[in-house]
Amino acid sequence: MLPTILDLSTLRALYASGRATPVTVAEAVAERMEASTDPAIFITALDREALVSAARDLMARHPEPNSLPLWGVPFAVKDNIDVAGLPTTAACPAFAYDAKADAEVVARLKAAGAFCTGKTNLDQFATGLNGTRSPYGAPRSVFSAAHVSGGSSSGSAVAVAAGLASFSLGTDTAGSGRVPAMFNNLVGIKPTPGLFSTTGLVPACRSLDCISIFAATVGDGLAIRRVAEGLDAADPFSRRAVPHSLPARGLRFGVPTPAEREFYGDAEREALYDAAIARLEALGAVAVPFDYAPFREIATLLYNGPWVAERLAAIAGFFAGNADALDPSVRSIVESAKDYSAVDAFEGRYAFEALRRRTEATWAEVDILLLPTSPTTYTVEEMLADPIRLNSHFGHYTNFANLLGLAAIAVPGGFGADGLPGGVTLVGPGFSDEALGHWADALHRAAECGMGIARDAVPPEASRVPAPEADEIAIAVVGAHLTGLPLNHQLTDLGGRKVRAARTSGAYRLYALPGTRPAKPGLVHEPGFAGGGLEVEIWALPPAGFGRFTAAIPAPLGIGKLTLEDGSDVSGFLCEAHAVAGAEDITIHGGWRAYLASR
Amino acid sequence: MLPTILDLSTLRALYASGRATPVTVAEAVAERMEASTDPAIFITALDREALVSAARDLMARHPEPNSLPLWGVPFAVKDNIDVAGLPTTAACPAFAYDAKADAEVVARLKAAGAFCTGKTNLDQFATGLNGTRSPYGAPRSVFSAAHVSGGSSSGSAVAVAAGLASFSLGTDTAGSGRVPAMFNNLVGIKPTPGLFSTTGLVPACRSLDCISIFAATVGDGLAIRRVAEGLDAADPFSRRAVPHSLPARGLRFGVPTPAEREFYGDAEREALYDAAIARLEALGAVAVPFDYAPFREIATLLYNGPWVAERLAAIAGFFAGNADALDPSVRSIVESAKDYSAVDAFEGRYAFEALRRRTEATWAEVDILLLPTSPTTYTVEEMLADPIRLNSHFGHYTNFANLLGLAAIAVPGGFGADGLPGGVTLVGPGFSDEALGHWADALHRAAECGMGIARDAVPPEASRVPAPEADEIAIAVVGAHLTGLPLNHQLTDLGGRKVRAARTSGAYRLYALPGTRPAKPGLVHEPGFAGGGLEVEIWALPPAGFGRFTAAIPAPLGIGKLTLEDGSDVSGFLCEAHAVAGAEDITIHGGWRAYLASR
Repeated sequence: MLPTILDLSTLRALYASGRATPVTVAEAVAERMEASTDPAIFITALDREALVSAARDLMARHPEPNSLPLWGVPFAVKDNIDVAGLPTTAACPAFAYDAKADAEVVARLKAAGAFCTGKTNLDQFATGLNGTRSPYGAPRSVFSAAHVSGGSSSGSAVAVAAGLASFSLGTDTAGSGRVPAMFNNLVGIKPTPGLFSTTGLVPACRSLDCISIFAATVGDGLAIRRVAEGLDAADPFSRRAVPHSLPARGLRFGVPTPAEREFYGDAEREALYDAAIARLEALGAVAVPFDYAPFREIATLLYNGPWVAERLAAIAGFFAGNADALDPSVRSIVESAKDYSAVDAFEGRYAFEALRRRTEATWAEVDILLLPTSPTTYTVEEMLADPIRLNSHFGHYTNFANLLGLAAIAVPGGFGADGLPGGVTLVGPGFSDEALGHWADALHRAAECGMGIARDAVPPEASRVPAPEADEIAIAVVGAHLTGLPLNHQLTDLGGRKVRAARTSGAYRLYALPGTRPAKPGLVHEPGFAGGGLEVEIWALPPAGFGRFTAAIPAPLGIGKLTLEDGSDVSGFLCEAHAVAGAEDITIHGGWRAYLASR
Repeated sequence: MLPTILDLSTLRALYASGRATPVTVAEAVAERMEASTDPAIFITALDREALVSAARDLMARHPEPNSLPLWGVPFAVKDNIDVAGLPTTAACPAFAYDAKADAEVVARLKAAGAFCTGKTNLDQFATGLNGTRSPYGAPRSVFSAAHVSGGSSSGSAVAVAAGLASFSLGTDTAGSGRVPAMFNNLVGIKPTPGLFSTTGLVPACRSLDCISIFAATVGDGLAIRRVAEGLDAADPFSRRAVPHSLPARGLRFGVPTPAEREFYGDAEREALYDAAIARLEALGAVAVPFDYAPFREIATLLYNGPWVAERLAAIAGFFAGNADALDPSVRSIVESAKDYSAVDAFEGRYAFEALRRRTEATWAEVDILLLPTSPTTYTVEEMLADPIRLNSHFGHYTNFANLLGLAAIAVPGGFGADGLPGGVTLVGPGFSDEALGHWADALHRAAECGMGIARDAVPPEASRVPAPEADEIAIAVVGAHLTGLPLNHQLTDLGGRKVRAARTSGAYRLYALPGTRPAKPGLVHEPGFAGGGLEVEIWALPPAGFGRFTAAIPAPLGIGKLTLEDGSDVSGFLCEAHAVAGAEDITIHGGWRAYLASR
């Protein structure tokens, strides 16, 4: 019996124990899809036969459970992303085509053992944040059949939240990978633009589009992201990541000044945002008020500026002959592109650059931003009655992120008295995708609001994202570099700090190297030898310092790996074997310092 | 008596010795300006009284000679850059306004002790590369009264080449800071876009415009650049520099494949380009043929694509009522902007990004490009007869640079039998501005063609730019890290570059380590053993990369010192002795690659 939420840790444990196989999971997913009460989640759902066949095929090729990073993991794909052999509709039947090949991201996920369950509903051409702009119906939040699911990645979010897939692919140009995460109590991973290939994606705004991930936990989302990401030479907007780190302690997170907080009267969502701020502070981070105005002004450029021309550029040929085939709201937006000249496009760019400059003042003060994911939510009825204006409310805190090249992770933020979820998004500098993970995960866990529809579930411990380690390299020193000895300054000069004292395993011998000045020992690994271990000190150096330190070591010494008495390995001193031939074995002293004291 | 060319080193020496003062230099400059035979250099020239007054003022405030970086250095300013109290015309009288404040770059230069001699002629609105598109006349190359000076920074180049200023400011959007440098035997410093503030500049293409420097030597240009550069919060396109280094030895410079060389039939300029390649090779750099096609295609986007809309955006309000006031060529270009929609603008961006991706293949193979600055030159008469087409020839090798965010330095390249100069440009990655300097200077000196009109002058030794010290660590790799083998990417991922192939001394044995995956050898030093030496590759890594690389090496391997066959020591792989006990000795193969091939 599968749990409601098919998070990766749970699935892996089931596979490892033999209590489930990809085939039984495929069968269960098929049953759930058949039993689903929301008919609008999928545009193309694979049937039981196809799902089981995919699972069987995986098991035939890779019989060992969990032998691939996403072995037997079911995932759903937003229907503006190609999956070979299935139609891609972008929620516009007249636009549909049969995909000949998997999108690059889909191919990477499949190669890692995941299998696709179907193509999910979306706001047509990914133009919208609410989920009602589709001829295939409006998926609903898993918490209220009256309320919108959020969009444009509507079906992808609901599928994961309802337990119909372990994760799903959405896309995020304005906020489509974040808003539906909030409305369905999920994690939304919005990668830095360029981190995921967009080969095989129907563009919304080509210069801004990101494929995104909905997952039950942040840890799941990161694991999936690592599989999906990577430079794609065929996608001109694909970029090589240069990871951006965040402080391991004392994270400074920006929160809009009170005057810049907007919830459109939704006191429940406002209270949930305040609670999220308090939680992140309780985790040791520091709230820093900042001026949201330039971010908000950038956000408005996306729909009320020349960037809408990208939406026309994406489908210009189709639109010319098929404008009537579009959802009226989508059509009005795409059509507005015609009002903009190339001069307008460049003037939009200039306005953006001026606003970007203003945002830099904030980044000098904070490490990340913590924002409401959406200020509020609406019923489908409300949305359909005022579709442009209410949709824009959802993007109040999201639209700026891709224009600025930022990374974001949306996490659940608990529930209001109305039974509807809140959510917050951690926004970090470009390529902080990995570094955001620890804080996002800790915040999700602290909210104690479960995963998707399973509000009382506890995110599995196995998916916990540990605090980042400082960017240092540990090194075990044995001889003249020990504290107080003549070469110790080489470590401190290079930014080193002493971490702790330790001992090697028993499989090492220490020799006094003849003729060295200052006197030095040589440490030699001898598998099978059961000595008492040798005194070392563990120091930590920044990578460049570690590199310079290593480069300065003269023969016959070098830096390899030592095994400590606790069984762990650490970089440390080696000695070439020829140098200890005839040297005095001083292992009995238990360390260089003790040997020196004995003389 | 001042020398013809007022380079900084010469001027400083004169000031230091008391043989000149800023006042005597101001007087001499005034005399030269009055005596100049080219009436088209300046649009607004300061008179003797104003020049002497500025010099007196400097000496009153800073009496100590050379007490400021540019103490008493006369400079000219292109007339699209504001100088407080002078009109800015952009070579369009109807557009002229009185500048209230100095452009940010001008202010920095003045604060460093330089004094402005006047505002120089230009192709109107900096739209052109030839120097004839101005109602203030066409400045001529200092080497031929019949020939164009190049543009758009026409007057600025001629002023320095004729000894009317020590340096000048130009601007460079398409190549306006490089082409006139060639035609006047000067150095043209085109900074990375964003390095110089554009506050106080009449825009041509705001997203691409760079203020540039004409100087007599590269050393002068760098010194001036260091004063002028710096983040300007008021300019949204201003960027904080992250310096990009270049190899201190073994620089790889790209040269277009023969099929991609274009000189429009100018055999003299072609021969001068070949000579420059030979000179750079003689300096120890390595010529690498590359495919210029994607760069050329990017170049064409600048005038035959939506970027022309920036030229209209820059002056839209003025142009609406004053189109007749424009030079006909300039007007036709600005007017063409109206043909482009916002969709066109984004499609141009997409085309550009695809071309940029193609250029990345070149940057993986080369450190810099060495290109002809201009393929050829023309007389004023020829240019006026065919103004658009012949102008475009000048931009064949320049137009791509700012779109790609690159740095460039144009240097003199000697003279043809026709008495007209050639020139080459070193193009480097963004923010390689400083790193390019050594190579550019060495190439200029090797050309033995003087400075500006003084063809026989020798650039002063004091302005020589020394070779950079490399902040890299060399490492000898032996096994799976060799080029083409499975772990080679660990080196390239960490910023490594291959330096050369080499061999160890004869005192090493190589073993095939059993059970390693990918298969790896172990190298063991055996003093006294006289084998044939073993194949290694020397790679260079930045210190942090070297540190990370070392830290990632698993036991039983490590990094120590190897002795090469030439007796030198280098960091390289060691292997713990216990691991080779019983392993196959493969020393006889002479290296890991040969061993693999033998199996």
